[in-house]
This record gives sequence, C-alpha cells and structure tokens, in this order.
Amino acid sequence: MSDQGEEPISLVLFSGTDDRLTAAAVLTAGAAALGRPVHIFLQYWALDAFRADKINMRRPLAPEAGPEGAAAVQQAHADGQQPWVETLRMAKEIGEVDIQACSLSMDILHLSADQLDPIVDGVEGVAAFYVNAGVGQVVFI
Amino acid sequence: MSDQGEEPISLVLFSGTDDRLTAAAVLTAGAAALGRPVHIFLQYWALDAFRADKINMRRPLAPEAGPEGAAAVQQAHADGQQPWVETLRMAKEIGEVDIQACSLSMDILHLSADQLDPIVDGVEGVAAFYVNAGVGQVVFI
Amino acid sequence: MSDQGEEPISLVLFSGTDDRLTAAAVLTAGAAALGRPVHIFLQYWALDAFRADKINMRRPLAPEAGPEGAAAVQQAHADGQQPWVETLRMAKEIGEVDIQACSLSMDILHLSADQLDPIVDGVEGVAAFYVNAGVGQVVFI
Repeated sequence: MSDQGEEPISLVLFSGTDDRLTAAAVLTAGAAALGRPVHIFLQYWALDAFRADKINMRRPLAPEAGPEGAAAVQQAHADGQQPWVETLRMAKEIGEVDIQACSLSMDILHLSADQLDPIVDGVEGVAAFYVNAGVGQVVFI
Repeated sequence: MSDQGEEPISLVLFSGTDDRLTAAAVLTAGAAALGRPVHIFLQYWALDAFRADKINMRRPLAPEAGPEGAAAVQQAHADGQQPWVETLRMAKEIGEVDIQACSLSMDILHLSADQLDPIVDGVEGVAAFYVNAGVGQVVFI
Repeated sequence: MSDQGEEPISLVLFSGTDDRLTAAAVLTAGAAALGRPVHIFLQYWALDAFRADKINMRRPLAPEAGPEGAAAVQQAHADGQQPWVETLRMAKEIGEVDIQACSLSMDILHLSADQLDPIVDGVEGVAAFYVNAGVGQVVFI
C-alpha cells in the first residue's frame, strides 16, 4: 500500500450549497497540501455552481442551516472567510487537483463546456471518472 | 493491491430524491461496467423509494434544485433520460450488483421484505453490510 | 492489505439532521463492533448538534422525510429506538472511536471547545484529520 502522499482521493461534488462546497474545498485543500492528487467530478447542482456566470455568486445554504446558521455563515464571510472557489484555486496552485464535469449532468442542465468557469479542466463520463480515480477513495459530497 | 476490475465498491443510499438516486445509479452502472462488484445498502428515504408501490413514481428533488433545476430535470426526463431504476436494472444485468435493505431502516419505516421491489436482493444489518463490503470503499449518498 | 479488523474508517459528519446522525451512529457502531478504529470529524451542522446545550435535543429531519417519514421516525423514537448520541456512546465503549471537531467549522459557528459535549475528544484542522485517517476510507455524511 502506497504512503499517504501518493494516495489519490476522488470527490464527487453533487451539492451546490455554500456550506457543502466549502466543506469540499477544505477537504481538497487539505489533501493537496499533503501531496495527494485530488480528482473532482461535478454533478448536478455542484456543476451548476461552476458556471462562469455563477461561480462568484453567493450560494444558498442547506435548509437545515436555519436562520441562526445562516447568520453565522454570513458573518464568517463578512469577517474575511475565503470563498470556496478561492480555496479551490489555492489548492490547484499548491497541488495536483483535476476538476471534471460529469457529461450526463452537462446534458441534464443543457450546459456546454464554454459555459463553465476555466477552473474546470474538462468534461468526462463516469467510466473515465473511475479510471482516473483508480483504486483511490471516492467521497460523495 | 488488486487491480480496479476486482475492487468492490459499497454505496450507502440514504436519500430518496430523484437527483441523488440518479447520481447513485450512474455511479453503480459505471462501476459495474468496469467489472467492479457493487454493494448497495438502502437506508431511510432511499429505502422508501424501493417500495414496490413507489419505485416507478416520480421522486422529489433536493430543495436546492429550485424551479430552474427542477425544470431542467423534468425536461431531461421528457427527452428520454432513463429513470434511475432502469439504470440500476441495467447495471444488475451487466455486472455484479447486490442491493440490500438496512434492517434498522426497515424497522423505522415499518416495512416488511415483501413490500420491497424485487430489485432488492435482501435485508441485512450493518454488521453484514461491512462484512460484505470487505475492505472496499464506502460511499454515502 | 490488512484485514478488516484493523482497517480504520473516517466519517466526516456534516449534516445535523436526526436521520443522518442516526445513519452515521449506526455505521460507527457497526465498524466499532468489528474492531475497526473510527475517526469522526465534525463540520457545520453536525458540529452544532454536538454542542453540550443541544446534544440531547430532538433534531430536525431532512426535508425529504415529509409528514409520513417524520411520523415514522417519531413513532420509532416513541417505541424506544435509541437516540443517535446513545448509539455513539455505546460505540465508544465497545471500540476505538475518536470524535474531533473541525477547527474551521468551530470558527464559523463561533464555538469554543468548552461549549462541546464531552463525547467530543478534541478540535483539529483538516490536515490533522487526514493524518489521523491515514490511508483508510473517508465517508462524508
């Protein structure tokens, strides 16, 4: 078994809420900082969040956040907490992070590759996702 | 470490929304097509979606879909996108896919085995789930 | 590859709904019963659920539960189903279960360590989480 520094990790991003995208970005940055290759596969509402015309917009939160949770998150952003997309950009600079859009989700949302933010590296099907993930872990967020 | 073709993957299906069930079905079909055994463990609202009297019904979406996302998904289905359960049936035909209901969730939802669609292969507890999953990956959806 | 009894599993708990916390507690107890070390990393709304002043309160359910699902869960609790926190306490007694709060989520929610229930063993950053998880699986709930 290889040591952790070479062990890839694959994140399937499904949700496009600010809280889950932030959790995903932090898990990505942490893995990248440890030298682990990170493969990200964008589906559904997470894919929608990576549209060039939406990627810098404020995202909704999970319904369970409630008013108290929403206020805490808003305050954290006002206090300078990095937006999730900036954490992902930083992770791409310090490590090996590959971001691919799921081709089926592209079809469902009627998106073309040129509508995605350049942080997305390409579009692939689920078979290619598994081949790139190899035997590494898969985490669904 | 075995090569990918023999590496099992276990999916814990918790959510019963159309979008997450579709994502799960696609991940199942992709793994099955690569020759990987797939173990599916049904909990809570995903289990409810596998009831014989509900499995062909249209499911709700995650709240974050919003009206625009809901319209896109509805259009994709109208355009012929395969329902999640058909993708799962196809995956069972081409590969080794075992679908088990979580016994605790069966109790919570007051379900008996004969109320489940025949695509479900049986009912098991969490210990049996782990034994069947072996050292393979666990993905929670 | 080590046998399952020594294979650690890491659960990132993000959601604080009763249904997902129960699913997480059951997966924890099952792994602990098989002798697997379990690392739990608390983020966002799951972390909020571990506050000392909230840990014994009834939690909301995922919106998809609906009135029928909510009634089933309420009835199960009335019939004596163990609360998720009791399942976690039991898992800590029978196995090796380490529960850590995510330091970034502590900041976002303005929590200090003394506000958490003693079932939480400490606070750590994402890098420490990965180091403790090792090459074991990561499951996001």
